[in-house]
Amino acid sequence: MQYYVNESIKNATRIFPRQGRGGYHRYDLNENPEGLPKAFVDSVVREITPEFLATYPEPDRFLFKYAKFIGVKRENVMATNGSDMAIRYLMETFGERGKDVVTVSPSFEMYWVNCMLLGYRHVSISYEPDLTIDIDKILAAITENTRIVALVNPNNPVGNVYAESDFNRIADKAESVGAVLIIDEAYHYFYSETFLSNVLKRPNAVILRTFSKLMSLAACRLGVIIGNPEIIHYVNNSRLTFDVNSFALLFAEKILDHPELIHTLIAIEKAGKEHALAELRAHGYECCSSMANFILLKTKNPPMQVAERLEKEKKILVHTFKNELLVDYLRISTGSKEAMETFLRAFFEIDV
Amino acid sequence: MQYYVNESIKNATRIFPRQGRGGYHRYDLNENPEGLPKAFVDSVVREITPEFLATYPEPDRFLFKYAKFIGVKRENVMATNGSDMAIRYLMETFGERGKDVVTVSPSFEMYWVNCMLLGYRHVSISYEPDLTIDIDKILAAITENTRIVALVNPNNPVGNVYAESDFNRIADKAESVGAVLIIDEAYHYFYSETFLSNVLKRPNAVILRTFSKLMSLAACRLGVIIGNPEIIHYVNNSRLTFDVNSFALLFAEKILDHPELIHTLIAIEKAGKEHALAELRAHGYECCSSMANFILLKTKNPPMQVAERLEKEKKILVHTFKNELLVDYLRISTGSKEAMETFLRAFFEIDV
Repeated sequence: MQYYVNESIKNATRIFPRQGRGGYHRYDLNENPEGLPKAFVDSVVREITPEFLATYPEPDRFLFKYAKFIGVKRENVMATNGSDMAIRYLMETFGERGKDVVTVSPSFEMYWVNCMLLGYRHVSISYEPDLTIDIDKILAAITENTRIVALVNPNNPVGNVYAESDFNRIADKAESVGAVLIIDEAYHYFYSETFLSNVLKRPNAVILRTFSKLMSLAACRLGVIIGNPEIIHYVNNSRLTFDVNSFALLFAEKILDHPELIHTLIAIEKAGKEHALAELRAHGYECCSSMANFILLKTKNPPMQVAERLEKEKKILVHTFKNELLVDYLRISTGSKEAMETFLRAFFEIDV
Repeated sequence: MQYYVNESIKNATRIFPRQGRGGYHRYDLNENPEGLPKAFVDSVVREITPEFLATYPEPDRFLFKYAKFIGVKRENVMATNGSDMAIRYLMETFGERGKDVVTVSPSFEMYWVNCMLLGYRHVSISYEPDLTIDIDKILAAITENTRIVALVNPNNPVGNVYAESDFNRIADKAESVGAVLIIDEAYHYFYSETFLSNVLKRPNAVILRTFSKLMSLAACRLGVIIGNPEIIHYVNNSRLTFDVNSFALLFAEKILDHPELIHTLIAIEKAGKEHALAELRAHGYECCSSMANFILLKTKNPPMQVAERLEKEKKILVHTFKNELLVDYLRISTGSKEAMETFLRAFFEIDV
């Protein structure tokens, strides 16, 4: 007899990222193209021993330190295997089969991927043709069928941010219908504003953060969920016993011990982004500067063709779009001025 | 309005492992108390660079290598964030709310924990008072309501193994009712037999392996699911985009490059276990030698009391049980002869 397979999972079509990116200059996934300072990495790596490797991970020391770092309590935070896992936990805990998850479109794909896997209805509010988002349309989409509203702030890939008044209207509406509001601050630190204090005052909202972007630890997989103790308690109930690995916890702790590193990373990336924007605009490119570590730019030639040539001829990876609002754009991750020079030299040669 | 919370998750009672185990001699969680050879660890660690850390993980190179190592194809395997995550994926993919998951009792707790979180009915077949398991009772428990049968082989904490005829009868019954059979070989390599070739011939069975036990990488979180391409395809559909971290993949690859390490680890642990068993029996202890890296032993004094004194006076952690079949036992993880001497010296002083 044919074995039972969950229908949503059975029928899902998944596209996983390409492999073998190591041999390329990577401007496609909003990683830090160069990473943390080598001396820092070397000093952390020296703490890795056979016993360290053989012992199951313990997240508490990191969590106490992280809570203190952002000015909250231990019971306000939990750690996850990347924000990928944070999103899954949140959607499993607060979502309901057949009910709605509201996001904007385009946004980070894992919200709709998890809707597909969990059998939730994905309600997405499209950006306007001028790449602004109409908050009233988001509000109108939040109904008694809504279980989760998820907003990435700044949003990827458009790079816009939400005003405090937008947050309040959306959070009020979510609360009025019994929905949870997820504010995904993956690009925090590139963008210094946060809804952290607003979220902590609300029963039904959480913040997501990741160590993959500014913190330059995408290999490690570390996400954090922040919220009031009750909502964190529920999400924590859903988690694996051993989720985040010990390397992620070790590297993250060491970064928190050296906050000057964070300021350095912000400054390097800011200089790189400004340099790239200035050069691109000087060359006549229309750019949409995000509040995060990426730039949307309109190419002279079709973006797909530019991306293909960058990859084949220059070993450079960039991001293109199928969404019709963005078909004319490339998205490039930003890094140091040197990293941006590598991209710009190649790009100006190809997109002529 | 109160926000919606999934009822199963809301009502779950979770107990997470104690923290701060680093300061103790650890014989409680079946880790390798000492870990991999230091020279090997140091050589792998040297490959960790800022770029390595900043790049999203890529599991394919490991998976090709692992598949070759165990003599299967790439499409027969997938990697997960520990077998913790493998169990979650399998239960989400092949389980159904309100339907049955059949296991023996006691066994690895994450099977019933995930039943609780996912709203599945956990049907557990208890061991007999002499710690044998009645296969007919397992067979009788598998009905048209069964979606998953999960057997740990060797089983933790009892340490028994299943015969090929047991496997065949259970797999046939599972197939006849449309259930998936999970054979959790977490303790493979300590126990050299495997149902791998049997599982690959079946449409509805998978093997689980972990790098936390013999491979001594519990900190890294790496599990593997092995099965026919169709069943692996379904589980792969359910996975996170970025799941296993790059450290786990790196260390695992390096171990596969040095299979002599595996033989060394097996030999060291075998010598340690034999030494511990001989000493314990010479001191009049009744021991239940598992086919894995642990020993069940009947203490003279109440086990809880012995465990408490070992912890407080000797900084030694061991495992005790609430299950009535095992209340008279301690479970101790085994390691090298030296690691076992540390335990034995302390134990013989305390359990008098």
